[in-house]
Amino acid sequence: MISDKLSVQQIVAYLKVYGISQVVISPGSRNAPLTYSFDQDEFFKTYSIVDERAAAFFALGIAQQSQKSVALTCTSGTALLNYAPAIAEAFYQRIPLLVLSADRPDEMLNQGFGQTIDQKQVFDNFIHSSVHLKGEGDNEAFIAEALSHLYGKKPGPVQINVPLREPLYEFVPNSLFKIEDLRWKMEEAHQDFELPLDFSSEVKNAKRILVLTGQLSPDSKLNKELAQFAQRENVLVMTETGSNLFSEDFLPCTDRMVFNFDEADCLNFQPDLVITIGTNIVSKKIKQVIKKHPPKTHWHIDPSGDRIDTFGCLSACYPMHPSEFVRQLNTMEEETSNYKTLFHQKEKENIEKAEEYLRICPYSDLSVFDAILKAIPENQMLQMGNSSVVRYIQLFNQRADLIYFANRGTSGIDGCTSTAIGAALESGKATTFISGDIAFFYDSNALWNKYIPKGFKIILINNGGGGIFRIIPGPSKTGAMEEYFEAQHNLNAEHLAKMYGLRYFSAEDMHSVANGLNALYSDEKPAILEIFTPREENDTILKAYFKCLKQAKKASSTGALPKNTQI
Amino acid sequence: MISDKLSVQQIVAYLKVYGISQVVISPGSRNAPLTYSFDQDEFFKTYSIVDERAAAFFALGIAQQSQKSVALTCTSGTALLNYAPAIAEAFYQRIPLLVLSADRPDEMLNQGFGQTIDQKQVFDNFIHSSVHLKGEGDNEAFIAEALSHLYGKKPGPVQINVPLREPLYEFVPNSLFKIEDLRWKMEEAHQDFELPLDFSSEVKNAKRILVLTGQLSPDSKLNKELAQFAQRENVLVMTETGSNLFSEDFLPCTDRMVFNFDEADCLNFQPDLVITIGTNIVSKKIKQVIKKHPPKTHWHIDPSGDRIDTFGCLSACYPMHPSEFVRQLNTMEEETSNYKTLFHQKEKENIEKAEEYLRICPYSDLSVFDAILKAIPENQMLQMGNSSVVRYIQLFNQRADLIYFANRGTSGIDGCTSTAIGAALESGKATTFISGDIAFFYDSNALWNKYIPKGFKIILINNGGGGIFRIIPGPSKTGAMEEYFEAQHNLNAEHLAKMYGLRYFSAEDMHSVANGLNALYSDEKPAILEIFTPREENDTILKAYFKCLKQAKKASSTGALPKNTQI
Repeated sequence: MISDKLSVQQIVAYLKVYGISQVVISPGSRNAPLTYSFDQDEFFKTYSIVDERAAAFFALGIAQQSQKSVALTCTSGTALLNYAPAIAEAFYQRIPLLVLSADRPDEMLNQGFGQTIDQKQVFDNFIHSSVHLKGEGDNEAFIAEALSHLYGKKPGPVQINVPLREPLYEFVPNSLFKIEDLRWKMEEAHQDFELPLDFSSEVKNAKRILVLTGQLSPDSKLNKELAQFAQRENVLVMTETGSNLFSEDFLPCTDRMVFNFDEADCLNFQPDLVITIGTNIVSKKIKQVIKKHPPKTHWHIDPSGDRIDTFGCLSACYPMHPSEFVRQLNTMEEETSNYKTLFHQKEKENIEKAEEYLRICPYSDLSVFDAILKAIPENQMLQMGNSSVVRYIQLFNQRADLIYFANRGTSGIDGCTSTAIGAALESGKATTFISGDIAFFYDSNALWNKYIPKGFKIILINNGGGGIFRIIPGPSKTGAMEEYFEAQHNLNAEHLAKMYGLRYFSAEDMHSVANGLNALYSDEKPAILEIFTPREENDTILKAYFKCLKQAKKASSTGALPKNTQI
Repeated sequence: MISDKLSVQQIVAYLKVYGISQVVISPGSRNAPLTYSFDQDEFFKTYSIVDERAAAFFALGIAQQSQKSVALTCTSGTALLNYAPAIAEAFYQRIPLLVLSADRPDEMLNQGFGQTIDQKQVFDNFIHSSVHLKGEGDNEAFIAEALSHLYGKKPGPVQINVPLREPLYEFVPNSLFKIEDLRWKMEEAHQDFELPLDFSSEVKNAKRILVLTGQLSPDSKLNKELAQFAQRENVLVMTETGSNLFSEDFLPCTDRMVFNFDEADCLNFQPDLVITIGTNIVSKKIKQVIKKHPPKTHWHIDPSGDRIDTFGCLSACYPMHPSEFVRQLNTMEEETSNYKTLFHQKEKENIEKAEEYLRICPYSDLSVFDAILKAIPENQMLQMGNSSVVRYIQLFNQRADLIYFANRGTSGIDGCTSTAIGAALESGKATTFISGDIAFFYDSNALWNKYIPKGFKIILINNGGGGIFRIIPGPSKTGAMEEYFEAQHNLNAEHLAKMYGLRYFSAEDMHSVANGLNALYSDEKPAILEIFTPREENDTILKAYFKCLKQAKKASSTGALPKNTQI
């Protein structure tokens, strides 16, 4: 059975052609023609999630893993607006979410009817295409036009607004609109960009090439090419965990490396050529360092062609796949240099000093992250919450067996848990989600979800408020810290776990953390381990950690290099 | 102390002139200059609410009661988008919310920075004004322009987007921008609309005048004028609880009256003149009846001048205050008629029959609402959740001592609890909030709120899903009822109550409902009474109730009037 509405039949047909088989439905009446048509068709896998905010982030998590579009549908009115945070995140994370928003017929707008708002173009600042269908008749061109913007060089979200007139509950055995009748097919994106001829001279003559990688899905071809490139003496490849790149020749802990840079370090570090790959670098410090000491040349490699000028010195954006770009780099000559040796030596010293500090580190966020990152079982997916969680994780050596994801498109706290659940479900991998308390309680409706897989484990670092506000300079001097920055609270997750039928464990010192991690991963059900850390000590301990790194670095660098000496 | 940013100093000064003294703050860093400036100034009462969705509905509740603007401020990025549902509700409920959205400097947009989206005009479909301030320099004209749209003939929301450059935490003892320096003052709205000369003839010659009232704040002047007008023999005044109008001469239960209308009833009822006052009538049935049997003339009385044409037959919108309009009606001659007598007689019979049915009514949503509405202590505010709750309440005689509110601007379920808490806080009245389970769990973050007043009592009707979908025809025939319409669940509020420190009582039959109500209202703390009703029986019992009314009505109407006879 399928709705008798032609627009719905056309949508169903086009979703099949585009291979969009997963639909997250939020219950409502106006979207009944869509809901029922998807439910009745074996092609579609449907999910029911009540809170549209959580539903959209859940869909985003699925699409993040499948790298295919996922559809969302909801009823008319403000329901749709609750999708907005996830749509913005999808836009910047380049995830092709498809919003099918049911609407009332046009003539009902502003005439005193409930659940009726102007739904057209509500996401226009962060969406690739929004079309508003006609209530009656043929909408094929609109639907095809919208869907053509989902993929291509820059995947992203699209909205199809679907006015539906009563009666909503009329169904027919077969669609009158056949897939064979479609006038448009899905188009393949062509990428035939050629690098300019003078390109190789810049690479050949650079004594210091710095490659910085932001968020990327796992990509073995890129990893291989980049690992080869990183063997060069004039190349530093600095990754973040969310890059999902791993090699002995990469430097994975940007903040650990650059946090204490003084002027001399910066000059030693200043590259001739910076190459950026991927989106949204987490480290703020590296942005400041490069902005202050800019390279002669900055190339951003991005299939979308977006000119992302993070350091204010962008020379070119090459709209091609990064693996192809780095493959071409590997064919070029290299300049002699001690750039790599110098900073890999620093890295080695940093690791030693960090390990030394962590052995004596008092119980805190820092020591807890150390324990967690060692305890996560092999080959898992790690989903990182915003905002202090993802920053803490950057301080620890990346594990080659894990894949790392976070909502760094817009870095919001509003849907981290929902995204992680969707991603875990789609990937089929055992998944650890680490969250801070504010983000976790914010998205507590994420747990109102029947699809949480067994292998989904939540580790909640509860430090009684937004710990990030104690780390960044500023808020503590206002005297309004607890109330308006940290948002101090005494909440815990035990009641939520009970409410939603999750196992619950808690810990409050290193001993119980060890036991808790053991219990968490031994359990056969989705579960929460809530780790309480000392709100007022975490920031001091983190600062002591960085101070300790600095001492190490200073001793070696002043020994090796006179101040302000360029190599 | 106040931020050193001129834009912030100008905002603070203008808020004082406009008397906007309440600010709901969601914690963040980018908005620190605003947060701290409000916190430090005794003029402002500030609240800290983490989840921006709940924060905005909480602010809406405050402003709903104070009828003054309330400001909201949040950090940059998707935080802002979480305000959207409440902004749309404010637009249609005509509540002057002021959004002060902190933003990053313009040049950071789309350059790979976190929490950075295009925040300009994101609410354009449902806001009166959006301005984007310059990062530096004088913004006085923009701020004054935006604020001038808050009030006037049609109050509503406004956004001021405030780019703020680091350092964010620099403060000075005194504002450099003085209130005496302001170039613009708050303007009073002038209303000097004059009714047309031929106006009185339509009133004088009408044998049947139907006045329908939608949502209105309590208005004693309008109540007095309308009660006088309702004494006329040719006038029927049909109110809804959200009209906050009360008189023996009004008919308060529209659905009870019109639900069973057959063709003959409709013809007897068909008015010559319909006058509508207020926004968003709840009853769907009355809209259908009038649309099918339209009056010769339909006047909508609305200070905004919005031509709200709910029945498709609007003749004119008179942009004036309803009390002034009805005062003028009262000066005019009246036509003889038995219009009032006939339908007040029907009303009497309906009441008798309804009471008779309720005496034998099995335990269900209907019987529970009957018990609750009798038990609410005197002189309370009643906040009604969407969507079946507000509809059920329309079936019961209005209580003159209560004031009734609901989010009927857009009729969403996304912020009913948050709104109710804000309203209770501002009004200072003991408040009962009645909610269905889906709406309640949707807005569970509403309870993450330190300002819930002692006299705030939640009655949660938990029928295990969206009961409305069993009442409306359609969903049950899809076979996907439980999953995609009702969203069946086994959740209860006990854990949430524990989590947020609220007292909790539960009931599951008439005896425990009586005890529960007693306990709820005896308790000195904010508390929840969760009443479990039979999911699969509620709709059948409601239908039986309407059937019973029909039998009563038929007996009397066929006795009194031959079919198809016009009076």
